[in-house]
Amino acid sequence: MNYILKDENAVYYECGFSCDNELFIRLPDTAYFITDPRYTVEAKEQVKGAEVVEARDLFKAARSIFKKERIKKLFYDPKEFSCADLRALERSGIYLQPKRDLSWRKRIVKSEKEIELIRRSVELNAQAFSEFALFLRSAAGMSEAELVYEAKGFLSRRGKYELSFEPIFALNENAAKPHAYPTEKKLKKGDLILFDAGIKYERYCSDRTRTAYFDEQIDFVKEQRFADPKIRRAYDTVKKAQEAAIEGARSGMQAKQIDAIAREIIEKSEFAGSFVHSLGHGVGLDIHEMPFINTKNSQIIEDGMVFTIEPGIYIPGEFGIRIEDMVVMRNGRAEVL
Amino acid sequence: MNYILKDENAVYYECGFSCDNELFIRLPDTAYFITDPRYTVEAKEQVKGAEVVEARDLFKAARSIFKKERIKKLFYDPKEFSCADLRALERSGIYLQPKRDLSWRKRIVKSEKEIELIRRSVELNAQAFSEFALFLRSAAGMSEAELVYEAKGFLSRRGKYELSFEPIFALNENAAKPHAYPTEKKLKKGDLILFDAGIKYERYCSDRTRTAYFDEQIDFVKEQRFADPKIRRAYDTVKKAQEAAIEGARSGMQAKQIDAIAREIIEKSEFAGSFVHSLGHGVGLDIHEMPFINTKNSQIIEDGMVFTIEPGIYIPGEFGIRIEDMVVMRNGRAEVL
Repeated sequence: MNYILKDENAVYYECGFSCDNELFIRLPDTAYFITDPRYTVEAKEQVKGAEVVEARDLFKAARSIFKKERIKKLFYDPKEFSCADLRALERSGIYLQPKRDLSWRKRIVKSEKEIELIRRSVELNAQAFSEFALFLRSAAGMSEAELVYEAKGFLSRRGKYELSFEPIFALNENAAKPHAYPTEKKLKKGDLILFDAGIKYERYCSDRTRTAYFDEQIDFVKEQRFADPKIRRAYDTVKKAQEAAIEGARSGMQAKQIDAIAREIIEKSEFAGSFVHSLGHGVGLDIHEMPFINTKNSQIIEDGMVFTIEPGIYIPGEFGIRIEDMVVMRNGRAEVL
Repeated sequence: MNYILKDENAVYYECGFSCDNELFIRLPDTAYFITDPRYTVEAKEQVKGAEVVEARDLFKAARSIFKKERIKKLFYDPKEFSCADLRALERSGIYLQPKRDLSWRKRIVKSEKEIELIRRSVELNAQAFSEFALFLRSAAGMSEAELVYEAKGFLSRRGKYELSFEPIFALNENAAKPHAYPTEKKLKKGDLILFDAGIKYERYCSDRTRTAYFDEQIDFVKEQRFADPKIRRAYDTVKKAQEAAIEGARSGMQAKQIDAIAREIIEKSEFAGSFVHSLGHGVGLDIHEMPFINTKNSQIIEDGMVFTIEPGIYIPGEFGIRIEDMVVMRNGRAEVL
């Protein structure tokens, strides 16, 4: 299959290098990596299995390659290319056939090597959660914004690792916003902390969320002792939903069946209606990729797929709770990474 | 003009809020901000002048609005929407007319208020450069990667400000890669340091580059004393090119005429061919936006436009030099911010 890619992670998967301005063309016997002069020094050092082409206008260079290689038809992902990009490719006169999620589909089942990299990413991330918890024990009085900064120091090991996304550190009612931005709100004893963060290890992402009760003993373990009875009930419901989904997930199920396991527990509780997002998402080179574990996806789950299981309960103006782990499907079941 | 936007900064410009999953529809008498349930709490608090619509499928919600408002035609930026997005909008049956750089064109001339925010962003960024230089005086032995992390602490004031891009901190031959990734290379006396960084102040970006000689006296000022004669000649050439462009820029000129002022100086020197990128780019809500100051752009420069002037000389395997400041056009001339 001849295809063209533009997305950084899609391209990295093909040739072991990417930058923020590139096109990658895969042909039966050859491949091309097209980039501008800012990146050619590194590209020539690091791209594997593709010829590096330097160009100021990447699309013009791509059209030249189409002509030289007498390409008639090329697949592309319509989500990856803008309308303007497509027009620039179509000027070549070749037939561009859309194939949605072209790269994600190739990447949905992870190789053993990828699983090992993801496992290491998850381990390093979990260690950072523990180290950050120790720091938090004496961090009362610091703001959410300051604590996000401190968290990033632990997560990245002071710059050694990239983060897979901007961490979320949200207190009490701010945690009710599933993607909260940090505020000047100060940490104090008795607060609920929602912490959602991940790193990249050799470009492979990790993603974890813990919700914890704040005092001098804070730890991001799953056993928590919230003082407020409503928070306690909500926490136990989320925990039960998460455990049930991990326990119940099977290769051969549809993604939506896994979502349903967790959702049913929350919907049957007093917190019905408060689980406002999907149960999980695949994780790999992208922090969000296939398979998507939501109420509608009939994708069949297979061994080797890696995804999050992250139910939540959000009570606007009061609190939010989410517990998230990553799993890999192995021998038909979900193994927590 | 009716139009639809998707880009975060384009949407923020319209209504003072944005998130990472949204559509914005502007109609003559009204506007809509469509987002998913993760963001509606914050959107309802912060969106100005638009109705917030919560939806799981943003494009479906947009089609409902097209119908309800009896919209026949809508402009969109073909760079902003993917082929898949466009297909989802076209299912409504309305006519979608491409208008390239729709939002960037609106934003190319900055208001006084925007210029003040950008000025503050530039000031805070410059202060961080000074503070980081003081830190560097006793940082010999630290690696590029560690120093990027330290730089981010100074730039962000430990998390108070967002960065406008991942900073570049590159030593000697690594600086020859105009967008270098940090390595484990250690800082030592006599090194050339290229440092390119920016922050955001109330979402407005700054961008600055300095190239400096490293010893215990390091400072990111424009007067530098490199020991190596070739580096000294290259540095002086870049500095002269930058000063000439700042001095020579006029409202009413074409962008490419400003690029030519700097480029001619480098091309006439012994370093001909080593200035491998464009002279500058607009800066505002986006770190790279219109006007683009390159060899081809015939865009007329006007008062109120804000852009970088950043010539460079790159000698692969040896060193790279770049000096970058931001300017605003005022009374026909470039004022350094």
